[in-house]
Amino acid sequence: MGSVYGRIFRVSTWGESHGKGVGVVIDGCPAGMELCEEDIQRFLDLRRPGQNKFATPRKEADRAVILSGVFEGKTTGTPISVMVENTSQRSADYSEIASYYRPGHADYTFDMKYGFRDYRGGGRSSGRETIGRTAAGAVADKMLREIGIDILSYVRSVGDIEINSFDPAEIRQNPLCMPDKEAAEKAGAFLEELLKKQDSAGGVVECRVSGLPAGLGETVFDKLDAELAKAVMSLGAVKGFEIGEGMNAARLTGSVNNDAFVMRDGKISKATNHSGGVLGGMSDGSELVFRAAFKPTPSISSLQKTVDRSGKETEVSVKGRHDPIIAPRAAIVVHSMAAIVIADMLLLNMSSRINRIKSFYKEIIPG
Amino acid sequence: MGSVYGRIFRVSTWGESHGKGVGVVIDGCPAGMELCEEDIQRFLDLRRPGQNKFATPRKEADRAVILSGVFEGKTTGTPISVMVENTSQRSADYSEIASYYRPGHADYTFDMKYGFRDYRGGGRSSGRETIGRTAAGAVADKMLREIGIDILSYVRSVGDIEINSFDPAEIRQNPLCMPDKEAAEKAGAFLEELLKKQDSAGGVVECRVSGLPAGLGETVFDKLDAELAKAVMSLGAVKGFEIGEGMNAARLTGSVNNDAFVMRDGKISKATNHSGGVLGGMSDGSELVFRAAFKPTPSISSLQKTVDRSGKETEVSVKGRHDPIIAPRAAIVVHSMAAIVIADMLLLNMSSRINRIKSFYKEIIPG
Amino acid sequence: MGSVYGRIFRVSTWGESHGKGVGVVIDGCPAGMELCEEDIQRFLDLRRPGQNKFATPRKEADRAVILSGVFEGKTTGTPISVMVENTSQRSADYSEIASYYRPGHADYTFDMKYGFRDYRGGGRSSGRETIGRTAAGAVADKMLREIGIDILSYVRSVGDIEINSFDPAEIRQNPLCMPDKEAAEKAGAFLEELLKKQDSAGGVVECRVSGLPAGLGETVFDKLDAELAKAVMSLGAVKGFEIGEGMNAARLTGSVNNDAFVMRDGKISKATNHSGGVLGGMSDGSELVFRAAFKPTPSISSLQKTVDRSGKETEVSVKGRHDPIIAPRAAIVVHSMAAIVIADMLLLNMSSRINRIKSFYKEIIPG
Amino acid sequence: MGSVYGRIFRVSTWGESHGKGVGVVIDGCPAGMELCEEDIQRFLDLRRPGQNKFATPRKEADRAVILSGVFEGKTTGTPISVMVENTSQRSADYSEIASYYRPGHADYTFDMKYGFRDYRGGGRSSGRETIGRTAAGAVADKMLREIGIDILSYVRSVGDIEINSFDPAEIRQNPLCMPDKEAAEKAGAFLEELLKKQDSAGGVVECRVSGLPAGLGETVFDKLDAELAKAVMSLGAVKGFEIGEGMNAARLTGSVNNDAFVMRDGKISKATNHSGGVLGGMSDGSELVFRAAFKPTPSISSLQKTVDRSGKETEVSVKGRHDPIIAPRAAIVVHSMAAIVIADMLLLNMSSRINRIKSFYKEIIPG
Repeated sequence: MGSVYGRIFRVSTWGESHGKGVGVVIDGCPAGMELCEEDIQRFLDLRRPGQNKFATPRKEADRAVILSGVFEGKTTGTPISVMVENTSQRSADYSEIASYYRPGHADYTFDMKYGFRDYRGGGRSSGRETIGRTAAGAVADKMLREIGIDILSYVRSVGDIEINSFDPAEIRQNPLCMPDKEAAEKAGAFLEELLKKQDSAGGVVECRVSGLPAGLGETVFDKLDAELAKAVMSLGAVKGFEIGEGMNAARLTGSVNNDAFVMRDGKISKATNHSGGVLGGMSDGSELVFRAAFKPTPSISSLQKTVDRSGKETEVSVKGRHDPIIAPRAAIVVHSMAAIVIADMLLLNMSSRINRIKSFYKEIIPG
Repeated sequence: MGSVYGRIFRVSTWGESHGKGVGVVIDGCPAGMELCEEDIQRFLDLRRPGQNKFATPRKEADRAVILSGVFEGKTTGTPISVMVENTSQRSADYSEIASYYRPGHADYTFDMKYGFRDYRGGGRSSGRETIGRTAAGAVADKMLREIGIDILSYVRSVGDIEINSFDPAEIRQNPLCMPDKEAAEKAGAFLEELLKKQDSAGGVVECRVSGLPAGLGETVFDKLDAELAKAVMSLGAVKGFEIGEGMNAARLTGSVNNDAFVMRDGKISKATNHSGGVLGGMSDGSELVFRAAFKPTPSISSLQKTVDRSGKETEVSVKGRHDPIIAPRAAIVVHSMAAIVIADMLLLNMSSRINRIKSFYKEIIPG
Repeated sequence: MGSVYGRIFRVSTWGESHGKGVGVVIDGCPAGMELCEEDIQRFLDLRRPGQNKFATPRKEADRAVILSGVFEGKTTGTPISVMVENTSQRSADYSEIASYYRPGHADYTFDMKYGFRDYRGGGRSSGRETIGRTAAGAVADKMLREIGIDILSYVRSVGDIEINSFDPAEIRQNPLCMPDKEAAEKAGAFLEELLKKQDSAGGVVECRVSGLPAGLGETVFDKLDAELAKAVMSLGAVKGFEIGEGMNAARLTGSVNNDAFVMRDGKISKATNHSGGVLGGMSDGSELVFRAAFKPTPSISSLQKTVDRSGKETEVSVKGRHDPIIAPRAAIVVHSMAAIVIADMLLLNMSSRINRIKSFYKEIIPG
Repeated sequence: MGSVYGRIFRVSTWGESHGKGVGVVIDGCPAGMELCEEDIQRFLDLRRPGQNKFATPRKEADRAVILSGVFEGKTTGTPISVMVENTSQRSADYSEIASYYRPGHADYTFDMKYGFRDYRGGGRSSGRETIGRTAAGAVADKMLREIGIDILSYVRSVGDIEINSFDPAEIRQNPLCMPDKEAAEKAGAFLEELLKKQDSAGGVVECRVSGLPAGLGETVFDKLDAELAKAVMSLGAVKGFEIGEGMNAARLTGSVNNDAFVMRDGKISKATNHSGGVLGGMSDGSELVFRAAFKPTPSISSLQKTVDRSGKETEVSVKGRHDPIIAPRAAIVVHSMAAIVIADMLLLNMSSRINRIKSFYKEIIPG
């Protein structure tokens, strides 16, 4: 339960790490939008492992196949089913972990909830679960770009090393997806040290969205920032979510934290953006800025204490191929979750005013 | 749209600051639970203003009336409708704000979304909106206590002043709801300084939940921490959400952040609790610990720049009765949102295993 | 559970027959629509009892009060809470029924599900539960009329007496809401006979909707006719639902039942309307026509066999004030449910094509 | 939109007639239930065409593949993804229908809603869409049988020919799935006549459910019969839904239609079952009995009037392989929809009483 997200643009993901495949069904994507497998593949390639020394050396082909919902190159308005076959999974690597609970993983909680688990490669709690999200994100992102909404996500910090400059062109030039070359280099050196110690690092992913019309988001529980928080916190390794000033807002005073409204180019704008682009749960026309804190990869090969299923204490060294840091590969997943949330909010927002609805049915659907 | 939360334990809030009242309809509360207005009133009293110098001097009676769903002192399984009349609202205070946009408030975004707004006292975006949430939280909390689940929430920091000790008995002894008397006194002095400067402060609310069975929470989008993040971020003034180590997890290494499993009193337990009680989105049997960062009260009487509805720049001093800090009164609201989320997750969790369902229908409903 | 309906235009009803009141919260009504209590009162008055000899002689004032969501005569986009106080309920009438199960009523099933019930006047399963639906229907209907959609509902048959002619002006001229004066007179005589025998009659309500744009309704589970069926079957006394030819379609052959497409006034139209205005779950541009079969009022004062809560067989004569037929007063409730469903479908339909969404955001919200 | 059904046991179907395949994702199936592809295949085989002269001669292999959610022969609690590849579809048959609107089909409404359509074999509105429903129904049915709930569905009438006897063993012995051999033979002769005339017939499917505990179903909108009505009316060819007496209830009097409660074997029971097993929207412990009227197959090869996409009147003879009647193959689909609805209601019902929830968490999950 809990594998469905969205009210209008609705995604259902499925699949385990070592089953036949992983995928997603997207219900509620508007008709008439150009879409091909390459659109989705581009996104999947950005989360694919095996591309550099800070990502696991697995060669996951991860080829997206569109099974339904697209005809003659366009979405039909019916569910878009996307599947990625699991091809390179080696079950042997994971057979031992059936018997004990890896620290920092969901092994124990899966057993507690369901009575047993598909222990191969983490099963449903594997990082491969995010393939379905990413495929759906690619579709949502395409829709948003048609409206002029642009999302950018990147790694803001690795451990204590934070970016000091911001060059969007740099993001895809370094293996850590940081928009600051120097910081990326420092972070790379830090990770190499950790690799030697068989340890791993955490990091922060930041996401910026421009082009949002003001007013997206609903006014009580389904606020734009609340939905983003849920979507991003639903990534297994995320432990914190911030929008605008985030946790720091608690340290500021009102006179500092409030953003003055000003006129800019004849439009209402804000002098600052402490709010991160959201006021009262609705987009305020400024850039949307939020961050997610990813914990360090829990799979480390250094020795850890744990217990086995029979309740005996033991020690484990998690074998297998694991990234020393999650954040860089997760950047596109955060981007994807943002796209899914905003796509849903964009469609919901069309119902906000009776005059707009009347115009829609009189001018856009005059029939 | 967006005023409904929950899948089984489902709450619908309604009401504006200066309308006839505010309230909530709770659908899906189990039948046979003892419930009276006093249960709800206790919660409402904890968020009521006018009780000390750091809360607005309004005398809001805020009397909860149960309109349905309770018969002979017990819930009937049908919707519980709770209403609180608006009695002490003075519209005159707010008439001026119709014309301009208060910085840090939702005035502008409401106008952008809906074309106009009920400007009296913030309308739907007023803090009074949380009365419905709190009433629902009182009902959820009562249900959780029947199962042995206990929630505690308090202010962890005011501006830069953080607690250094933890005495639960102290929380309701000081006006700032801090479990550390000394910190509360320092924070009080800090707030008095700010009041003189017509400024306001932010703060962090922390919430702890004990007694949770392991396995609550769903495994992909509807993770326990994801739902908590949504519920808490949906409070207007919250800008950040953390569970366990929170944002700090990004600075740790795996060997530090992972919690070793250990045997304690014959039960599987964790040596540490960096996870904050959640692994893979499900409760792990440890104490649940999360935090919310509240921004400083945006309503301050010092002069601020803004624009009016016609697009002319102007300056405003927000008059009226406002708290210099939101966090202390919000502690019970955070508690309430946690209770609502956990109540829903507790009921959803009953469907996780076929054997339990069979036992339920054979032993609990043998008929 | 189960007191919430709708995806965008979402209604939550609450209230028991003999509690403090009944009501509804409508979330997702667009902003800027003129709405006053009189709009709702008009609908409530049409379902009010005590107006003629075929309706119970209770004098229910049933005054609708709007508690939120309307400001300066217009909807604000926030939840509209409507309440009707219970004023004329006499609990004494019903005290006896606490001990036994009335045939044809929900007494037994309520006890089975919830362990006990509010037995006063049927509690939640009372006909008064439809007040909340009707209030929401009045709001939905107002919205639909702004788009040019018109709903008409009436009694098509009483027992075996069916209408032979159709005069819309006649519907509100006779106590049975039949569009055929002669049939209404025959039906009236039939009901007078039944009243003498302390018996009751069933009837069929028919509903017609004109002005629907083609394409409303979703394509698989949430078809327009499927949602209408659910909404109408959710009225306690409805035992059958038909659209177009309805049950009779099973007796026809394809060559008869298929509606030929023809050109009429330059527009695609249908030569006949066996489909009842729906093809593949979407409105086809023809008039929508559906019917609901209402069972005879289960409360009859003639003696019936039943059992009491302790499992002893007994006989009962249901005392109190009861309509000898449900259908006439239910006509406006069916109208209301149709309005709620169509309002929701109308808003959902705005997301069907990417080009329309682009136009919406470029032309209607150019900002 | 609208391809997702259910609150806890939630199914998402996808797929077009001539795309790569059709399928379903089932979220919320309890863990630990034995499930294999053969369980699903058995159901699919019952709806498969090409098995006799009254079904299309297509040889659809329709092999179900389980892609996720099952491990070591048991459900894991995670989404169960089932896919059936489209193997025998011949696109050539359908190329002509791209240009005009087939009477009785969804061609026109699809174009109106989405701007264009996948015209190959009806695309999403093809009967193949029900494969996903049937696969999900097989899983739901397996779960229900674990609880002791048994579903049976069959053809009650073909055109005017109705069953006069009821032998469950006969249902799968004749090509029309009628529990009355004689009626089936008459109906067969009738259909042969229609085939010669290039025409088609309607029919009624009846469904019976035994073993239901009393109290399933929610009390207002989500009544058991309301959900069944929606689920069954969401099948493209269904035009009417009845429970118990159905439309006939409108012709009865209260004294006839009310079911007296009686004691039978020490249990509360009903002397008759006019209600069809539902009172106030909840199962009443009697057998659940409902019917669905299927219209005649709209695809007939005799000449029909219609218009083309450019708005020119024309005549069409729908070529291709089509069943002369839908009802027999639809019986298992109706069974499946009933299973899905009841599975969801069974899980929802676990939350109805606080005492049961307490027992569940104390006795069933004692940890």
